[in-house]
Amino acid sequence: MAEGPALEELIRLLARLPGLGPRSARRAVLQLMKRRDHLLEPLIARLREVADTVKSCATCGNFDTADPCAVCADPRRDPGLVCVVEDVADLWAMERAQVFRGRYHVLGGALSALDGIGPDDLAIPGLVARIASGGVAEVILATNATVDGQTTAHYISERLRPYRVAVTRLARGVPVGGELDYMDDGTIATALRARKPVEA
Amino acid sequence: MAEGPALEELIRLLARLPGLGPRSARRAVLQLMKRRDHLLEPLIARLREVADTVKSCATCGNFDTADPCAVCADPRRDPGLVCVVEDVADLWAMERAQVFRGRYHVLGGALSALDGIGPDDLAIPGLVARIASGGVAEVILATNATVDGQTTAHYISERLRPYRVAVTRLARGVPVGGELDYMDDGTIATALRARKPVEA
Repeated sequence: MAEGPALEELIRLLARLPGLGPRSARRAVLQLMKRRDHLLEPLIARLREVADTVKSCATCGNFDTADPCAVCADPRRDPGLVCVVEDVADLWAMERAQVFRGRYHVLGGALSALDGIGPDDLAIPGLVARIASGGVAEVILATNATVDGQTTAHYISERLRPYRVAVTRLARGVPVGGELDYMDDGTIATALRARKPVEA
Repeated sequence: MAEGPALEELIRLLARLPGLGPRSARRAVLQLMKRRDHLLEPLIARLREVADTVKSCATCGNFDTADPCAVCADPRRDPGLVCVVEDVADLWAMERAQVFRGRYHVLGGALSALDGIGPDDLAIPGLVARIASGGVAEVILATNATVDGQTTAHYISERLRPYRVAVTRLARGVPVGGELDYMDDGTIATALRARKPVEA
């Protein structure tokens, strides 16, 4: 290979990032080599900083330089409202919507019989303990609308049944901007069954 | 932003790599955070190594830990045959084809009146000097089949006219595996004009 072992190994590592294949990893490395001072060196410095300072929040599982994280530490956020998500990416997606003012609990995935992922592989025991210790009025299950996500939501709602806490889930229906012609049958059926009266 | 400034800055840097947008950069960072020991730390180490050891070959412009690079230093490769490419990525593409046994000259781009890129912004003076110093029998112009690439090839062939060197270019036509129905008119016209007798 004309790339040589050092570059080849770097390409191999970058190609393991989601969204990058071997081809785009190669282009990325060339870009890094061409822009050493403005891209390669800042990237190394920032990766080092993140590796050294960013940790998992012991309360919710979010990534932040502080523990508890900025969301858990924010006194303006309602500690009585906990949104359960599969992944930190989902937490960030919720935050981008700028509408949720409670706190989070990141599961670290979804239950999956196929992949052998059980409740103890996820942050479910931690969630149950968090609810058992009191102070939470409502748990919003915001796992993905996939089979595994919904199985996980169902399992959690069962586990939380003994406690005095309201358990809700995100509404399902046609997404904003969605065109019926491009919508799958399941979404249309769900949206039809969950139809609402039109407000005058 | 729930990401926090350190992660946000890392996402911003990664999003500047070709092939990664803000969304995939965010997913990449989450993957790095989840796999610190197996992905983040090796990536930092490898980037550091590449930044410290990989340089541009003074002869051809290839990236390698050695200067002259492995291609220029290989005694089995014909020094009398020089393939001119726009970019190191093109050199790597040629090498993947495993059919060229000569050496290279990387221009570092193509001439572009629009972007204000002239001959002295590219490694064209170096190429002329390399040819002038003798020992090269053939220069293969393998610039891209774009307007800028062909302008560059034309300019180089003019600059090399004073010297005793054969100047050739890659053949143009229908690519291997190409379907006529998906081919642009220019390619079909070129392939028709350059048609060859069928060998019995």
